[in-house]
Amino acid sequence: MFIFRTLILLAGVAFGSYALAQQTFSSDLADFRLQTVAEGLNHPWSLAFLPDGSKLITERAGQLRLIKNGKLQPEPIPGVPELVVAGQGGLLDVLLHPEFADNRLLFLSYAHGNSEGMTTRVARARFDGERLQDVEVIFEALPRSGTSRHFAGRMEFDSDGNLYISVGDRGDKPRAQDTRDDAGGVHRLTINGEPAPGNPFLTDDSVNDTFFTYGNRNIQGMTRHPQTGEIWTHEHGPRGGDEVNVLKAGANYGWPKVTYGIGYSGIPISDKTTMPGITDPLHYWDPSIAPSGIAFYTGDLFPEWQGDVFVGALKMRKLVRLRFDNKDVVQEEDLLPDLNERIRAVNMGPDGALWLLTDSSKGKVYRMVPAK
Amino acid sequence: MFIFRTLILLAGVAFGSYALAQQTFSSDLADFRLQTVAEGLNHPWSLAFLPDGSKLITERAGQLRLIKNGKLQPEPIPGVPELVVAGQGGLLDVLLHPEFADNRLLFLSYAHGNSEGMTTRVARARFDGERLQDVEVIFEALPRSGTSRHFAGRMEFDSDGNLYISVGDRGDKPRAQDTRDDAGGVHRLTINGEPAPGNPFLTDDSVNDTFFTYGNRNIQGMTRHPQTGEIWTHEHGPRGGDEVNVLKAGANYGWPKVTYGIGYSGIPISDKTTMPGITDPLHYWDPSIAPSGIAFYTGDLFPEWQGDVFVGALKMRKLVRLRFDNKDVVQEEDLLPDLNERIRAVNMGPDGALWLLTDSSKGKVYRMVPAK
Repeated sequence: MFIFRTLILLAGVAFGSYALAQQTFSSDLADFRLQTVAEGLNHPWSLAFLPDGSKLITERAGQLRLIKNGKLQPEPIPGVPELVVAGQGGLLDVLLHPEFADNRLLFLSYAHGNSEGMTTRVARARFDGERLQDVEVIFEALPRSGTSRHFAGRMEFDSDGNLYISVGDRGDKPRAQDTRDDAGGVHRLTINGEPAPGNPFLTDDSVNDTFFTYGNRNIQGMTRHPQTGEIWTHEHGPRGGDEVNVLKAGANYGWPKVTYGIGYSGIPISDKTTMPGITDPLHYWDPSIAPSGIAFYTGDLFPEWQGDVFVGALKMRKLVRLRFDNKDVVQEEDLLPDLNERIRAVNMGPDGALWLLTDSSKGKVYRMVPAK
Repeated sequence: MFIFRTLILLAGVAFGSYALAQQTFSSDLADFRLQTVAEGLNHPWSLAFLPDGSKLITERAGQLRLIKNGKLQPEPIPGVPELVVAGQGGLLDVLLHPEFADNRLLFLSYAHGNSEGMTTRVARARFDGERLQDVEVIFEALPRSGTSRHFAGRMEFDSDGNLYISVGDRGDKPRAQDTRDDAGGVHRLTINGEPAPGNPFLTDDSVNDTFFTYGNRNIQGMTRHPQTGEIWTHEHGPRGGDEVNVLKAGANYGWPKVTYGIGYSGIPISDKTTMPGITDPLHYWDPSIAPSGIAFYTGDLFPEWQGDVFVGALKMRKLVRLRFDNKDVVQEEDLLPDLNERIRAVNMGPDGALWLLTDSSKGKVYRMVPAK
């Protein structure tokens, strides 16, 4: 299987574009090149690696695309659920079930609209290699609203098989502290969309049962720590900067309390001490970089980066490398500052490379490989 | 019939709210009061007077409401076509067929979304007094796009029974000059959605057949001149101000040529002379008032205003009265500058009153009547 996958990947490289392949990018610990695996994608948002070496890519513009034998297939995959492309909404994340190789299940998050407004939905489907089948909507954040901002939509599985889905504040700040309102938090679900067993608020009538965390503005990056199994996220934070968080059951991440200048405790926003009841981030970016996509590097191609966290930046058009010593950042480095591309997603590939999606109507899939 | 209608209207007044009824508003030619006929509407957008004295009101938030026996009915009217409430989009205009009393036909404009984006649609339906039936989509502006801005959506009939529908530039300026793209113009249709016979571009392959005018940014007001039968509109104009226009078959209203500083003819934007090929507006507002809704006053309650044009203003929160001598503005007066309400629609009522809709999540229906 491994050899087969490697062959497929090599074939993929052989079909790719080599515009940047000869350019070496230097960084503190490693030099690397970017291989253009695919281009011409319409705002690619998320990437999933299939066991046969092919890749699924969501385009926010509404289509699910397949890279097969290293080549972007011209026809989109049929069967994507009814969705609406509007504003920041459209087709968002694609995530394989941990046992996809056996059950062929995958999950899509996307924006859905009707006469009551728009919202974030999650659908489960079976992918037979050509089309989506048995498509079922398993989750819908309620209530809907008329904005087309802050859908969040990043998903991840924990090691127990629970599905996490981030829902943004929909551009309406107070919603993130309203725990009867699904906006502005992370929901933990079974693969049928039910509240996951053991969810922190199951016995609290003032909080919807699916909530795992709340007070989250618009989480655009979510990944599982390769050792601890914790779910790591990043988001624009309540203090005006962006933050990296580790999700803790039942935690309130504070958005937007300090927007009003004074938190519940009466501490002014400019005093950056911890507020009672608010979980602090591990790391800040102030001013905002607009982070999107997050991955731990766990491959063999770059032993220097082993265990480091990579975060894409939309507004700041770069890739950030963070080294943590437990929960403390001990290194921070900006990669690709001159590429001038909005980075939407960062994935750790089964091939040991980091994979990047760029956010544009002519978006690209890049594969980062060692320079030598 | 007339007596019956009058009785119904009086009944309507009897049920209305009278918060403002005692307040007299002064203006140059007439003093008036505002009667609150209904309130608590979710962004009301358009009003239609039915022959039996009831009124239909669209809420941009997605519902069609009925005022019957002077009272806003709590339940929305069933049968509204599938639409999406997002951004400036939602349920927009409602317009009765000129022979509604006989055929019960009405037309709705609204925002529709799918995986290719959002757009403006027009549906025709039969209203039996309780629900919409035989709902049929007769027009859809193409291509779709991902913005939720500038849907336009105002409709009017001319005296030949042709249906005019404005489509905005969807926030993408060059689309208004692309005549193979339905955005940024006025389309003239039969009631089946076909290009109206005699449309100006039927033999021009470079222009879609439904176009009546183009180069229009986002027409939010459209009405028929009571004497000439011309279709009058207003919109944000190419020179940065807003303008009042009379639609002429095949005309180009210029948007956004001067946005780039230089028109086709090479004349800089600051030179406000006529540009070859561009139809000039009748009147400007610079800075913008954000006009919405337009009506000619043709009633008996205010003989002083006979023939004047009334235009609502969203941003500037007022009602503008314009007197034209042929096509020249000879009086301009701001009414209700202290009401502090965004005016979304202005209608000439069959009762001789002007009717206003205010744009808010707690929108109101006002009836303007003489003070004495």
